[in-house]
Amino acid sequence: MTVDEQYDWVSRGALEIISPGELRAKLKKGKTLRIKLGVDPTVPHVTLGWAVVLRKLRHFQQAGHHACLIVGDFTAMIGDPSGKSKTRPMLTREEVQGHVRAIEPQLYKILDPEMTTLYYNADWLGKMDFADVIRLTSKMTVARILERDDFANRLAANQPIGMHEIMYPLCQGQDSVEIEADVELGGSDQKFNNLVGRDLQRAIGQEPQVVLLMPLLVGLDGVDKMSQSLGNYVSITEEPFQMYGKVMSVPDHLLENYYTLCTDVSLAEVSKLIGGHPMEAKKRLAREIVTIYHSSADAGAAEERWLSQYSKKEQPDEIVEATIPDILVKDGKVLLAALIAGIGLASSNGEARRLMRQGGVKLDANKVDDPMLALTPEELSGKVLKVGKHQYRRIT
Amino acid sequence: MTVDEQYDWVSRGALEIISPGELRAKLKKGKTLRIKLGVDPTVPHVTLGWAVVLRKLRHFQQAGHHACLIVGDFTAMIGDPSGKSKTRPMLTREEVQGHVRAIEPQLYKILDPEMTTLYYNADWLGKMDFADVIRLTSKMTVARILERDDFANRLAANQPIGMHEIMYPLCQGQDSVEIEADVELGGSDQKFNNLVGRDLQRAIGQEPQVVLLMPLLVGLDGVDKMSQSLGNYVSITEEPFQMYGKVMSVPDHLLENYYTLCTDVSLAEVSKLIGGHPMEAKKRLAREIVTIYHSSADAGAAEERWLSQYSKKEQPDEIVEATIPDILVKDGKVLLAALIAGIGLASSNGEARRLMRQGGVKLDANKVDDPMLALTPEELSGKVLKVGKHQYRRIT
Repeated sequence: MTVDEQYDWVSRGALEIISPGELRAKLKKGKTLRIKLGVDPTVPHVTLGWAVVLRKLRHFQQAGHHACLIVGDFTAMIGDPSGKSKTRPMLTREEVQGHVRAIEPQLYKILDPEMTTLYYNADWLGKMDFADVIRLTSKMTVARILERDDFANRLAANQPIGMHEIMYPLCQGQDSVEIEADVELGGSDQKFNNLVGRDLQRAIGQEPQVVLLMPLLVGLDGVDKMSQSLGNYVSITEEPFQMYGKVMSVPDHLLENYYTLCTDVSLAEVSKLIGGHPMEAKKRLAREIVTIYHSSADAGAAEERWLSQYSKKEQPDEIVEATIPDILVKDGKVLLAALIAGIGLASSNGEARRLMRQGGVKLDANKVDDPMLALTPEELSGKVLKVGKHQYRRIT
Repeated sequence: MTVDEQYDWVSRGALEIISPGELRAKLKKGKTLRIKLGVDPTVPHVTLGWAVVLRKLRHFQQAGHHACLIVGDFTAMIGDPSGKSKTRPMLTREEVQGHVRAIEPQLYKILDPEMTTLYYNADWLGKMDFADVIRLTSKMTVARILERDDFANRLAANQPIGMHEIMYPLCQGQDSVEIEADVELGGSDQKFNNLVGRDLQRAIGQEPQVVLLMPLLVGLDGVDKMSQSLGNYVSITEEPFQMYGKVMSVPDHLLENYYTLCTDVSLAEVSKLIGGHPMEAKKRLAREIVTIYHSSADAGAAEERWLSQYSKKEQPDEIVEATIPDILVKDGKVLLAALIAGIGLASSNGEARRLMRQGGVKLDANKVDDPMLALTPEELSGKVLKVGKHQYRRIT
């Protein structure tokens, strides 16, 4: 690949690159770049959401570069020393390694193991003493660290920030220094932490890493970031038929997003597909994704089975559940149009009302075309809401 | 001593006790309390200013308690890692120990060595690893540490605060935890750091130390805190005659202050002395101080020699120098009354004008009684300013 081809390939779908000029300059050097990605050692599945950055790492490998996965075992071993967060239990080194071994086969469904090195950051952070920590902290100012959105917001709201919390971005930044990262990948929520790596590298005279941020993939609920704790996810190890069916439940307005972030279909073709029939576009998306994680044959078989079930009955076997957001309940009732938008089946209340007027919305197989219809949560509970040709949600 | 006697003895001259009730409760226990005082291992002399807290520590010893001197060799070994402060050079453990050995005889002019333990905080801080540091930092919030005046002011003024700087108060606080301090002594500028010790002790379930703050002694210039870098100090090792003469140059308005903080003269007697003739009060002060650090005989001899010189000539051999503060120069001239107050020879411009009107001010032996007299710095430079009977300054 030429430098331009590499640049186009690795920047596809990126939300932000800091900075494009530096990335081009690094690619121009013609050397194997070290591409860093942090790995949370506590989650059991690679989801399509996590796969967005892993696939980006794979793109760099395809362009000849080396993947450096950093397992954050140092902080996992400490847990949350203030005891306030239950989501951050203390793990032993053995537990962390067990988690990593369990997830490695999933990682190598996406990455080339020959071009990947797995690092454990306790190997260097665990060896630092207090004097090393003071030298590290001297490279960062308090004001800079408090620029991070969540810190700034909590400080402004008088919510306590433990001093240990402001140490963690430095840990991640030190990882970049230790492995001499050329590029760090992250979700958009990692921007600040990744920039700390740049600061620390610059402070000790290393060339600062390029930061390449990918958008967060919205989950099947069409609302929140795809995450294992929210249940709105597709794991890359799911069986072909199940995976196909889940992808078919992706809300229409997220189709382009999923194509860009979860497949390698060319952007020109994506825009053609999106312009066509949404059902066809979604079937192709589901086939593409099953093909990536299983095979083209598996994708074909899954589609055939799904279509035969789909044609036989009004609604699929498994229906994703959707909870009525509290905020939508006014005077004990919920405006159906607002609910449709609120759970991600339409991009706005206006679009939801249009779909209702056009007869595209059903509640337990009964058409509802009054765009101002409001129901109580009790009336809605347990009913199946259908929006468009193939979007179903069971209201809870 | 009864508890009440102990309380009165150790609280003499204290600016603030946090809290008086806790101090009484600790004294009531009847056990030997551990009284902590941090020692800066970089300065070569014990001055009367430093002696204020050392003498307070001695008062606790006289009441039966144990002195715990903490040598801050840990941070001295790190120096200023950001390289911004030249006043905090990096010292080896050997250099620190050399400094301490050099100053020990001075410390034991005040303290009872039998009731004193010298600790080096690198013995525990130097053994902490990054995980220990994170556990330590988790016991403190960012908001709490930024309450410290100088941090709050610098943050508000957009001046950078290195993250290592906010680690240092935790180091001092950890010292209190390690030695299980019952009371920590400090100058008023140490209030925040000493309170951090209370916070950390409470966080791990120790009974929090009482913090006893002493006022900062104003130096011979009558303006700034007595300090070795400013040159406005009296070292406790100075020869009797020199020491006597320096104390005789203490500005009149600081007499009560020096009596309270530098001698054990009872407060009732002090108020009687201050009410009498200032020259007599100052001679007694000089005798008291020379007696503490030398002997009563030395004090008598020094006084005799000083008085014979003083009576023979208009001005003493050695005259303290005073620099014209830039801020007082307006349109190229300095109001003499403002200068007198500005260099600490009067408590206000009003008092300076009163002294001038009364004929108490001379410039190179010429009486100056025009309270609005203004001169250029060139006209003043090198001249000897005499205010009252025995306060001399050479203007530079």
